[in-house]
Amino acid sequence: MRAYHLETPGTVDGIAARETDRPEPGPRDILVRVRAVSLNKRDLLILNGTYPLKAVPDVIPLSDGAGEVVAVGAEVTRFAVGDRVASTYFPKWIDGRITPALIDQPGATLPGMLTEYARLDENAAVRVPEHLGWEEAACLPCAGVTAWHALTGGDAVVPGETVLTLGTGALSLFAVQFAKMLGAEVVATTSSPEKAERLKALGADHIVRYADHPAWGQTVRDLTGGRGADLVVETVGPETIEQSVRASALYGRIVLVSANSPRKASLEITTDALASSLVTMRRLFVGSRTHFESMNRALALHGTRPVVDRVFGFDEVHEAFRHYESGVAFGKVVIRVA
Amino acid sequence: MRAYHLETPGTVDGIAARETDRPEPGPRDILVRVRAVSLNKRDLLILNGTYPLKAVPDVIPLSDGAGEVVAVGAEVTRFAVGDRVASTYFPKWIDGRITPALIDQPGATLPGMLTEYARLDENAAVRVPEHLGWEEAACLPCAGVTAWHALTGGDAVVPGETVLTLGTGALSLFAVQFAKMLGAEVVATTSSPEKAERLKALGADHIVRYADHPAWGQTVRDLTGGRGADLVVETVGPETIEQSVRASALYGRIVLVSANSPRKASLEITTDALASSLVTMRRLFVGSRTHFESMNRALALHGTRPVVDRVFGFDEVHEAFRHYESGVAFGKVVIRVA
Amino acid sequence: MRAYHLETPGTVDGIAARETDRPEPGPRDILVRVRAVSLNKRDLLILNGTYPLKAVPDVIPLSDGAGEVVAVGAEVTRFAVGDRVASTYFPKWIDGRITPALIDQPGATLPGMLTEYARLDENAAVRVPEHLGWEEAACLPCAGVTAWHALTGGDAVVPGETVLTLGTGALSLFAVQFAKMLGAEVVATTSSPEKAERLKALGADHIVRYADHPAWGQTVRDLTGGRGADLVVETVGPETIEQSVRASALYGRIVLVSANSPRKASLEITTDALASSLVTMRRLFVGSRTHFESMNRALALHGTRPVVDRVFGFDEVHEAFRHYESGVAFGKVVIRVA
Amino acid sequence: MRAYHLETPGTVDGIAARETDRPEPGPRDILVRVRAVSLNKRDLLILNGTYPLKAVPDVIPLSDGAGEVVAVGAEVTRFAVGDRVASTYFPKWIDGRITPALIDQPGATLPGMLTEYARLDENAAVRVPEHLGWEEAACLPCAGVTAWHALTGGDAVVPGETVLTLGTGALSLFAVQFAKMLGAEVVATTSSPEKAERLKALGADHIVRYADHPAWGQTVRDLTGGRGADLVVETVGPETIEQSVRASALYGRIVLVSANSPRKASLEITTDALASSLVTMRRLFVGSRTHFESMNRALALHGTRPVVDRVFGFDEVHEAFRHYESGVAFGKVVIRVA
Repeated sequence: MRAYHLETPGTVDGIAARETDRPEPGPRDILVRVRAVSLNKRDLLILNGTYPLKAVPDVIPLSDGAGEVVAVGAEVTRFAVGDRVASTYFPKWIDGRITPALIDQPGATLPGMLTEYARLDENAAVRVPEHLGWEEAACLPCAGVTAWHALTGGDAVVPGETVLTLGTGALSLFAVQFAKMLGAEVVATTSSPEKAERLKALGADHIVRYADHPAWGQTVRDLTGGRGADLVVETVGPETIEQSVRASALYGRIVLVSANSPRKASLEITTDALASSLVTMRRLFVGSRTHFESMNRALALHGTRPVVDRVFGFDEVHEAFRHYESGVAFGKVVIRVA
Repeated sequence: MRAYHLETPGTVDGIAARETDRPEPGPRDILVRVRAVSLNKRDLLILNGTYPLKAVPDVIPLSDGAGEVVAVGAEVTRFAVGDRVASTYFPKWIDGRITPALIDQPGATLPGMLTEYARLDENAAVRVPEHLGWEEAACLPCAGVTAWHALTGGDAVVPGETVLTLGTGALSLFAVQFAKMLGAEVVATTSSPEKAERLKALGADHIVRYADHPAWGQTVRDLTGGRGADLVVETVGPETIEQSVRASALYGRIVLVSANSPRKASLEITTDALASSLVTMRRLFVGSRTHFESMNRALALHGTRPVVDRVFGFDEVHEAFRHYESGVAFGKVVIRVA
Repeated sequence: MRAYHLETPGTVDGIAARETDRPEPGPRDILVRVRAVSLNKRDLLILNGTYPLKAVPDVIPLSDGAGEVVAVGAEVTRFAVGDRVASTYFPKWIDGRITPALIDQPGATLPGMLTEYARLDENAAVRVPEHLGWEEAACLPCAGVTAWHALTGGDAVVPGETVLTLGTGALSLFAVQFAKMLGAEVVATTSSPEKAERLKALGADHIVRYADHPAWGQTVRDLTGGRGADLVVETVGPETIEQSVRASALYGRIVLVSANSPRKASLEITTDALASSLVTMRRLFVGSRTHFESMNRALALHGTRPVVDRVFGFDEVHEAFRHYESGVAFGKVVIRVA
Repeated sequence: MRAYHLETPGTVDGIAARETDRPEPGPRDILVRVRAVSLNKRDLLILNGTYPLKAVPDVIPLSDGAGEVVAVGAEVTRFAVGDRVASTYFPKWIDGRITPALIDQPGATLPGMLTEYARLDENAAVRVPEHLGWEEAACLPCAGVTAWHALTGGDAVVPGETVLTLGTGALSLFAVQFAKMLGAEVVATTSSPEKAERLKALGADHIVRYADHPAWGQTVRDLTGGRGADLVVETVGPETIEQSVRASALYGRIVLVSANSPRKASLEITTDALASSLVTMRRLFVGSRTHFESMNRALALHGTRPVVDRVFGFDEVHEAFRHYESGVAFGKVVIRVA
């Protein structure tokens, strides 16, 4: 079989294809014929060596993939040959809280999904909703689950509350879709008129063009009758946190999905912004398998489809990474494997 | 002005109209020109003397009303003349938990809304959504707020979860509407094919005809792939609780809205039903003003309208009570006051 | 090695010792030299065939045991030879919510702890606090974890709140100890003056002699200035639930630990008791490994010791079961294995 | 009667005594003979004009006071003459969430407690525990309630968890006392060996001398076996937040009680500290009357007494303020009024 390996970190060209033997499933493993994979920001950080978790040498990249079960170990009970599955971001994190012992990830400390066949512990996969094609199913494990966890973890969003999303990364687009599912009002920021139209088509009720409004926190408050956003999906971090706090309702909740920034080494919030705020800020790492399964029930009930920006072939891995890296994508960048 | 008073409890004919002076608002009061009122089951219990809270003699009936502010006391800050408002079920319960000191209710221990003019503490009213007419706004204080509280209090319903409603009382219809707003799947029970159609039109995904299925708890499980309902809005109580437990998911939540029953003096749940269940059952009394305000934001965002069964005139109070008592209504029974 | 097996269900004499080979640990297993085990009500139910989960034929009884790790599989990372461990009640339930797939239990569907050597998945054991001897450590997995879960799961008990415990079963005694750790006031019921003294010595603030007070729910209210118990650890069920509801504060929480009863097949709560109550009742099954680990941190910080009623030898298994069955024990019945 | 008024903001000498008429209670008011009052940091901020809420001219200072009810209005139901009461920090905030409409405070926008007689809305007072003297009761409304809210609001602290307190301000001392009540392990920071001893006497398990350990976040982790603090009562803010995050457990909770700083205008948290943290940070404003009442039940059950640093006479108001301002106090600075 063919699989890509990160042979030389630091450059997209360091990802190279190899022919290797198909892995044999152990007694509790499943073997998955991978059909599609997708890229996430963490894959660029791993490529560049700036991800908090150090990747193993020659790792097969990518956490996100979907495919068909083609073999199962003798003790497997969760799946049968023919099942349509996706990988989970933290294969050992089933439910409850993550612990340091559960931190392994495909594409980092474990073999990833950029391969024709992947061996997964049967606990490290979920069934995918029937209405989704392979390219769509491959979009879910990281960005989808993170957005779901951000909106349904902690104090839940109730209908009529306002959710604020930042920009048009894949995670923010999932957040727009899920916030509408939850009955919320959505304010989304972008600086592009064309992306503004696409956000509206996804369900966003209001668009804030942050480039025109450096103090966009106040703009969000004005749009919500002075109340502010009840939940902010903070996908940026250092550059935006001050305005996110200013945009928040008195008891606003800010989910800090990202703390990374190429330009700024700290989150800074003025005491002025905090003085009259009762905001809660919480950090979040993707989610457990239970979050993934809960999201899948919602996707199935609502017939919701991830936004796919572009699909590349299995021979176009370098092109896919470069396209994703350029930042122009609106939605997920996918590679069709087979 | 004209107001009705409960002169002789025990019979609808004991409710009689009187001409009295219009009340003068105190410094923290508002005077409301009532435009419409609606009936709830508690009004029948008060009429019949079986409500847990003893009504004052000659009380003006009804908790639910909506109208226009026509005068305000000197210290009033929440409202101005011309505001469109509804009464709250517990005028002293603002937020957090109810306490015995907050138990007063219009139509029971306080003058109710079946009057041309009502004097309310400014804290005992909420603004009503602009898209609702007076008859619709008058439907909200009891059944609307209770359904909202049942679905958004406690562990929230997340999209893809299943909500079970029982029958076609006004509260259950609100619950269907709110559950759909929350992105849930709705299973509703009824025995009438015609009501089944109307429930579907309101958004119910599945109908269980309980008359055909005495063990309808299992029917609900079957409809949900064996998983069961995640939340049950238990509006009946003694006659249904056993099947509600059997209908529930492993960690199902049952909101016990009613504990009254003309036919049975206790809730009985077999140990067999509980043995393999991790269900949570919680009691609920309507809701606070904060619940009402939160619901109103959702109604406004979604443009949702209460289901009104029939509107009576201010001269048809006895007819309205009799119609409501007959149990045939699908939706709220309303009296137009002016 | 020697192990007991449940050869003939229905009678204590059906438990018989056998010589068998010591189990070999698989790659993710540990081998434990069992030093002590303890009995729980569920072991009697399994013996009598009335436990909801059907035991495998010839099962080694008992869920609760503690001992020393004497061998580890090649992939084991959580433990090393020499570690002092206890078994967990649900070996597959790590954190979050239990699911049907995690329901296996030692002494029922899996080999239990009444053996000289037990093979455990490394995920199915926890380190035990250093200050506890083997007999004490063997008391924790079922009764200890259940009491901990009852008091710290759901809405937490805050200092100054009142916890009600029923009787002097081992679980209730743990609940008294944990409630005091949490800063709560404890009301405990018993009918024996001697047990009353021992409950007070454990920390109980008030004793209610239920035999003298059939309406002991009101007695509890009176003892708490009319407020009622904030949390009831309902270890009985059908015979007590009505008084437990009557004993509860307006927003009281009742944790239904048991739903079994030899005498009554249902929980019955009068509508009269519920009418003015906002009680929450939730069912609970022991707890996850995370609950166990959290409890162990508390036991270690506070130097708390389980109450051991009596310790039997490994040759006195029948005597131990009979003593436990008689119901006279105050605290755990333990068998020293080695 | 005699009362002090803030005549000239900016200096302690701007606080001057005046003889005025004793206030008359309105129909829902109580008149309190003030016996003792205490100082809080907010009183210095109000004095200096740096408090977020602008004080009314000539305001009577201080939020915290305790005394005896000497007269009640005609509609008062909560209190009777002779009751021992304390003022609440937010007189209109009863339960649930604070809103902008509930923001009024004695000593800022309302007359404060530095007076012989204070008129309070009956809803703006609580009974004080019997075991407390007047000087002790006067310590509770701001620092006591804030510490209680910090430790019992949000996800509760469970026994065996670790609470971190910063320094020896009155709020931190209450936090040490309450954390021990909750069964937690307490790590407290201070730089003074003498204060370290007093913290230990109050119950602190570990002392971190931050002056010797600029990277004291890691010191806290080391003291807790690498786990970190489960809850941090962040009473400082800008100067300490980075180390507080580093001191926190994976799912640590940081309660941001203060966001003020004379030296630094923002909270800065490095992305490095956040990268592997799932910390939650939440802001908090004192607490509601319900928090106060809940704390009082705990104080009464445990017989706990606030730490009083020094008691001044009603003629020594300036000395009291100067002593408090100097920062040397260990515990509350109290003024005996009568």
